[in-house]
Order: sequence, then C-alpha cells, then structure tokens
Amino acid sequence: MFESAELGHKLSKEEYAAIEPQLRTDLLNTQFDLLEHKDFAAVILINGIDGAGRGETVNLLNEWMDPRHIEVHAFDQPTDEERQRPPLWRFWRALPAKGKIGILFGNWYSEPINERSFKRMKKAHLDQRLSELNRFEAMLAAEGVLLIKFWFHLSQAGQKKRLKALEANPDTRWRVREADWEIYEHYDRYREVAEHVLRRTSTGIAPWVIVDGSDPQYRAVHVGKTLLERLQRRIEFVRKGFRTRQTAAPLVAAPDERNLLNALVLDQPMDKKDYESQLEKLQGRLALAVRNEAFAKRSLVLVFEGMDAAGKGGAIRRVTAALDTRQYHVIPIAAPSDEERAQPYLWRFWRRLPRQGKVAIFDRSWYGRVLVERVEGFCSEADWMRAYAEINDFEDQLVSAGAIVVKFWLSVSDAEQLRRFKAREEEAFKRYKITPEDWRNREKWPLYEPAVCDMIDRTSTENAAWTLVEADNKYYARVKILRVLVDKLESALKH
Amino acid sequence: MFESAELGHKLSKEEYAAIEPQLRTDLLNTQFDLLEHKDFAAVILINGIDGAGRGETVNLLNEWMDPRHIEVHAFDQPTDEERQRPPLWRFWRALPAKGKIGILFGNWYSEPINERSFKRMKKAHLDQRLSELNRFEAMLAAEGVLLIKFWFHLSQAGQKKRLKALEANPDTRWRVREADWEIYEHYDRYREVAEHVLRRTSTGIAPWVIVDGSDPQYRAVHVGKTLLERLQRRIEFVRKGFRTRQTAAPLVAAPDERNLLNALVLDQPMDKKDYESQLEKLQGRLALAVRNEAFAKRSLVLVFEGMDAAGKGGAIRRVTAALDTRQYHVIPIAAPSDEERAQPYLWRFWRRLPRQGKVAIFDRSWYGRVLVERVEGFCSEADWMRAYAEINDFEDQLVSAGAIVVKFWLSVSDAEQLRRFKAREEEAFKRYKITPEDWRNREKWPLYEPAVCDMIDRTSTENAAWTLVEADNKYYARVKILRVLVDKLESALKH
Repeated sequence: MFESAELGHKLSKEEYAAIEPQLRTDLLNTQFDLLEHKDFAAVILINGIDGAGRGETVNLLNEWMDPRHIEVHAFDQPTDEERQRPPLWRFWRALPAKGKIGILFGNWYSEPINERSFKRMKKAHLDQRLSELNRFEAMLAAEGVLLIKFWFHLSQAGQKKRLKALEANPDTRWRVREADWEIYEHYDRYREVAEHVLRRTSTGIAPWVIVDGSDPQYRAVHVGKTLLERLQRRIEFVRKGFRTRQTAAPLVAAPDERNLLNALVLDQPMDKKDYESQLEKLQGRLALAVRNEAFAKRSLVLVFEGMDAAGKGGAIRRVTAALDTRQYHVIPIAAPSDEERAQPYLWRFWRRLPRQGKVAIFDRSWYGRVLVERVEGFCSEADWMRAYAEINDFEDQLVSAGAIVVKFWLSVSDAEQLRRFKAREEEAFKRYKITPEDWRNREKWPLYEPAVCDMIDRTSTENAAWTLVEADNKYYARVKILRVLVDKLESALKH
Repeated sequence: MFESAELGHKLSKEEYAAIEPQLRTDLLNTQFDLLEHKDFAAVILINGIDGAGRGETVNLLNEWMDPRHIEVHAFDQPTDEERQRPPLWRFWRALPAKGKIGILFGNWYSEPINERSFKRMKKAHLDQRLSELNRFEAMLAAEGVLLIKFWFHLSQAGQKKRLKALEANPDTRWRVREADWEIYEHYDRYREVAEHVLRRTSTGIAPWVIVDGSDPQYRAVHVGKTLLERLQRRIEFVRKGFRTRQTAAPLVAAPDERNLLNALVLDQPMDKKDYESQLEKLQGRLALAVRNEAFAKRSLVLVFEGMDAAGKGGAIRRVTAALDTRQYHVIPIAAPSDEERAQPYLWRFWRRLPRQGKVAIFDRSWYGRVLVERVEGFCSEADWMRAYAEINDFEDQLVSAGAIVVKFWLSVSDAEQLRRFKAREEEAFKRYKITPEDWRNREKWPLYEPAVCDMIDRTSTENAAWTLVEADNKYYARVKILRVLVDKLESALKH
C-alpha cells in the first residue's frame, strides 16, 4: 500500500516554480466556481504519519485558495458538550455546507488508528468501527458530499530524519512532542494498522490518496493536483445532471517520473558458479521446509507474474525441482474455459486451491483482472477498480485458513526482453514460446507499467506482500525468488 | 423487522388454488427463458426459524420448476476437504453457472447466527464476519449473480405450535430433533440475533425477504411471487444492456390483504374518569423517572409520527406536562430551512440532539424521508431505500451514547380523521390547524399506508422499537403513550 510513497519522490525548486502559479490559479478559480454554484460540499480528511507535512500542506491550501471559504477543523480530546452525544456528533457539527470546503484534521480515523496501534482496541472492534465509518461515508457520499481522503506518508527513516531536523532548529523545536517520538518507536505497528485501516476504508466512493510526505514541493503539488482534479471532475459530473454516485477517480499520476518499476536496477550481478552453489542450498532448504511437520497443517500458494520472457517458467522449474511431484500443481493461466466464463472471475482460482500440505503454483493468476483485462479493456474500469479489494479479500481468506501466499513480479528491461524474443525465434525448440501476440504485448508496455504499479500499491498487503524481482540476469532472479520463498516459508512455519 | 411476518398472514385453499396454476406456469417459463439465454446465475438463500417451512417450500419450488436445472445444496458440518480451505470454499463450489438457479440451504449465514445466539461468538466478531459477507455478496452481485435471500419466520407461539404438530404426527415426528427444541428455548435470543444479522446484511443489492412461515399456502405464494418478480426484473434489466448494478426491488406486497395498520383495532375503549386517574399516575411516574439520578447520565429522544389530526400535539402536551420546562425541547419538523437544505438530510436532527439529562421531543422527525418525501417524490427511490439503514445507524449511535429512543405511530380511522377535520374547521380557535394541504394528504392515504408499514418493518429494531398507537379514542391513545414511555424509561434506568 505504501510502496510508491516510500520511493522518495521529489520535485526540485525549479520544477515546483514552474507548476505552482498555474495550479494555484486553477484551484482558486475552481473554489469560487464551486462557491457560486453550491453544487456540493467538499470534505478533505487529513491523516498520516507525524512529521509528514500535514500542517504545512493545510496552511499552503489556505494560502492558495480563499481561506474565508475553507473551514479548517482540528479535533483533539472531545469537549463536555461532545462527550454527551454520539462520537460522530462533533464531525456533523463541522460539516461544510454546499459550496464550501471543509478540512478535517484529526478526524474519525485518528482515534481508531491510535487506539489500535497502542493495542487498546481489539482487531474485531476496529473492524466493527471501520464498517460503521464506511456506512457513514457512504451516506455522506450518497447525499452528494465529495470526500477526499489524504494519507501523508513517511518511511521510518524519513520520519526520524524529519523529527531530528525539527528538533535541531530552535524555531521548530516546539513542534516535536514527546508523543511524536513515542509514535516513532511504534512505527512498524502504526504502519501496519494504518495499512489495514486504509485498505478497509478505501472504497470506490471515497478512496485514500497516499502522499509521499518526504519532499515539501512534491507533496504540495501532489495534494494540489489531486484536489483540483477531484473538484473539477465532480463539478463536471454534477452539472451533467448526475446527482450523487460516481466511480472513483483513478489516482492522479505522481507529479515526478519515479515509479516502483523504473526505480529498479534490473541487471543485477551473479555468475554461474555462485548461482549453482546458492541454488543447491536454497533448494535443499525448500525441500526440508515442505517436509516439515508444521507444513502438514499449512499450504503454499505461489503467484508468478511478469512481462513476457521475464523468466517465470524457468524460475518455477527451479522451485518444483525441490518438491515431490505428488505435492504440487503448476497451474498455467490462459483464457478462461466456457465453464469458467459462466462464473465470477475468481471461481477458476477458488477451484484450484491446494489442500493442507500441498503447493499450488500459479503461472499468471487472478491478477490478470488488473493487468491484461484492464489494459486490453476486457472488463470495465469499474470492474478492475473493484478487483483490488476483492483480491485482497480473497488472499486474506487464504491466509486466515493457513495458506502461505508468496507473490513475485519479474521485471526485465526492454533491451533484454528484445534479446530474448530474438533468441527464441532463432532456436527451433523455443520457437513455440514466441508468438505475434508477444510482440504486440511488447508494444503495449507503456500501458502495462502503470497497471503493474497500481497493482503493487493496492495489493501488497501485510498478509501477502509482492516481491519485485530484477530479472535481466536469470541467475540472480532465480536465486532471489528461492531465497525470498524459503525465508518466508521458514518464518511462517515457526509460528 | 419481523413485525409484518408475525401478523399471521393466511391464504385459504381456494385463494391458493386460484393463484397457483398461473404462478407455476410463469415460474417454469421464466426458468427456461433464463436457461436458454444464460443471462445470469440466481442464488437463493434459504434461512429462518426451524419449523417455518423452509424444506417444504424448497420441495415445492422443485415441483413447480424443472428440478434438473435447480441445484439444491444443503450444508451441514464441513467435510475434511472443506475444512482444509477457507470457509467460503464450500459455497464457491456450489455456485450455479449462468442460466442456472442454485438453492443454498444452510449457507454462510447459518453458522454466524447460531454461534452468536448460543453466545459462542462475540458481537464484534459477528459484525466483522457480517462485513466480510457483505463484501462477498457485493462481489457476487457485481459479477452479475442475482442473490435472493429468504428468511422464513415464525413467532415463538407459532414455532411451538408447529413443533408440537410435527411431533404429534407419527409420519413427521422424526423431523423434530432435540436441537429444534433447544433453539425454541432460545427463541428470544435467536430472534434478536437474527434481526441484527438481517439488518446488517439487508443491502441494496441483496435485501432480505421476510416470509411469514405460519401458513403453507401463504408462504408458498409469497416466495413464488417474489422469485418470479426478481427473476423477471433482472432478465429485463440485463437484456436492456445493463450488466450488473440495479437498485433493490421494493418488497413484493403481501399476497393477502393484511398489514400492520389494518390489523389494528383503532377505537379502543376508555372513559374520561379512567383516563384522568391513569394520566395522573403516569405523569407522576414520568416526573420521578426524569428526576432519577440515573437519568442524569442518559437522555431521552421521543419521536411522534402519525396521520394528520391523529392527536400528536395533544399527546405531546400530556408528556411535557410532567417535565420541567428547562429539561425538554419540543422540535416541530416542517420543511427544512435553507441552511438545512445545504446539508445531508440527517444534519438538522443531529444538531438538535439532547445533552445528558435532557429530553428532545420530535413532532415529526427524520422519518419524513421515508414518509412524505417518498410519497411526494421529494427524493428518489434510491434515496428513501437507503434511508432505512441510515436511520437505523443513526438511532444505533444514539442508543450507544446512552440515549433512550421511543417512537410512536398514531393511527386514526378514516371516519375519525374526517370528523376531526370538520370539527377543526368549525371551531374558530382550531381553524389554523386545518389547511388545504391536510385535505390533500388525506386523499393520499393509500400511498402512505405501505410507506408506514415498510417504515415499521425496517426501522423497528431491538434498540428503538416502534409503538403503534390506536388513536381513535384520544384518552386511550394518550394513556398508552404515557404507559409505554414510562415503562421503557423505568426499565432503561434500571440497567
């Protein structure tokens, strides 16, 4: 969920200066347009990691727009008045009227995230609360309120750097409270709880926008552009005569050029000798792990996704080499059969789930929904948008039932893919592996890239994280895959 | 929720014989139409109180339609195979393909309802499970599956009668298990849990249909007609080119003529002397209750709804007569102000919520959404359909925060209303109370009647039940209102 936001996005002062004046003008004009027509109320929720620039960004929004028509509310401990009514009463009081923008700083998410991260609230109670909040937000949305939810993120290292910098400066020292360092100590726990909360409440009508808070220019532009786009889209939508519902806007592309895939160094060093010796050791550990008594009560679900010729097949063979043939199935996923087409898209995967003590290896998988089906338009935008949450639910169920879920994305560079395609055409026994469709898919890579990044951001969860594999060097890729797999397996079997 | 289903609906053998042949033919034709075009899969969930005729009805559906294309699945204890996969796996296996009808008997609701009613599952865990199930069903619906959920209901007396009858007959004695009597003993608890589950999972895409199970003819026709209507509506919908979403069908009207309102005897006896003596006692108890120390930590929210001239104002004055004027507010609800119109419809009620130790008396209320706004078309069908759940959530929040919520519907007969209207026109000091609009509303009563019945069925909850008041005799009505109020208040303050 936070993968992209931990890449360290940046905009230089010059880049910022080139964007800011227009963005500012557009925001102000849009604000007055909304104010004049009173189409809807906009509620902006500001949450996130301490030190990720929430306050600065809100100040900036007030500077960019007309602050007389922005209502900023901060919520701390409830007052007497508030304590004597239902907990949401204080937020009802703060709702902006149609035409206005309300910024809620410390809102209905603050308490559940804090309470749960300090273990003062049980998981089931948290989930109960979250579904109340989902119903509350669904009601607001159905009543025409535009909800924009920002999560300001920092990696743990980023948070430390930021707190230290604030403390070092006498002008800002006062802003670091004891509680901030306490939260810093709990960073992993806090991040895990936040991920769960954001995932459960990232609904079609009110998805979270995750902002990398490490660079002030970047985060300001990201928030400003997102806000502008959402407001304009909704204004257009309402004026076309639709009153309420609207599918979620896909996230605004990162204002800089960095993404999860182009941040990878694809050609990693490893020679054949090193490869062979590591491979042998890792296969030995894998063979032991799946024969472990504890594995008899678990199962293993492996997912391999990647570009054509990225080496999925070769990697899968290095895994199965360590397994007893009665213990695993490799399930290659191509176009669905007639029988499968007459069912919900996940049905074909449910029917292939392994029993305890068994291994299912999916060579391509349910992620086809958000990759090929999205890119080729085999399903609607609404369909692939909802698929992220459905897939997360599916994998949660697998994990709750004892399955260990490990997912790999194999990335090769453009040049290396071309080399492999040509080599396949030349070698007679590999010629069946290359088809005109592969060449066509290669052309479509610019469409696949954002789809892959969205997939990783939205489906890499505490229960079933993605591993990105730099695959230009096959030796390196296979060893990385086996090592990640064996580490995860051994660690899961200890619990 | 179960109010209508406990009225004792009935169809005579003759009425049944007049309906059955056509219904049967229509169902069979619709089944073949669906089978031929494979538009969607239909999943029918069968749940309810033991002895309410679930099995018989499923048998009947198989008789009416072609059983070769109906897949009936009953789920008992999970098998070995099933236990080794996620809990929903067994239901995925049983999903019908497009064109088919699947009947799931003992499905994903059985276990949570049972576990919770025997207190083997905590409330928060139940709610967690229910939101998983809501997500699962939302996914099925988005994939085009038509979900029809039947709850077969019996009052406790009805269940006892039915179990006794089965036991008395040597041919059917085997069907009554020990567990059935155990569930009978837990009836109140079971009903309460079922109500909660049904309310939380009665979504727009898959609402529950509650069937009065006490009469075999009635329940068969109710189920058959509902099934037919849902199938036909969806077929029509799909063939118009909509692929998935659809607002929920309003419930099929009860096949007999009985409803919650026409089952009331409106003219109840009470003479003036009796009235005066009871009134005095009840007002005394009320005055004591609100001065009780325990009330300082609670609040009281009263809702008065009813037909014009039903006596709401007079009843409210008999309540306030017992209260200190600093302690209560009477809030008459008419058309919203401009400020209120710029907010979600519940906002105007949130702002009038009482503090602890205070009483808020709503003379008309948030129920306007599902009464006048529905009948007059001031909001869309989708708006008032979602309002039931929103109102339940709102009242749940009130109750959780310590409020005691008491709601009255005052019913007068057509003749009595007419008499009062005329009397108002004649008496100078009451003339302001009668307007042309009142006469117009009176004409619209046939539209209000189903709206009131739907409102009571869908918003009478364990936390905030409706009391129906027979109001042709004002003395009787006022005394009943005060008695119910005082009883509820005293009992709430004991906890």
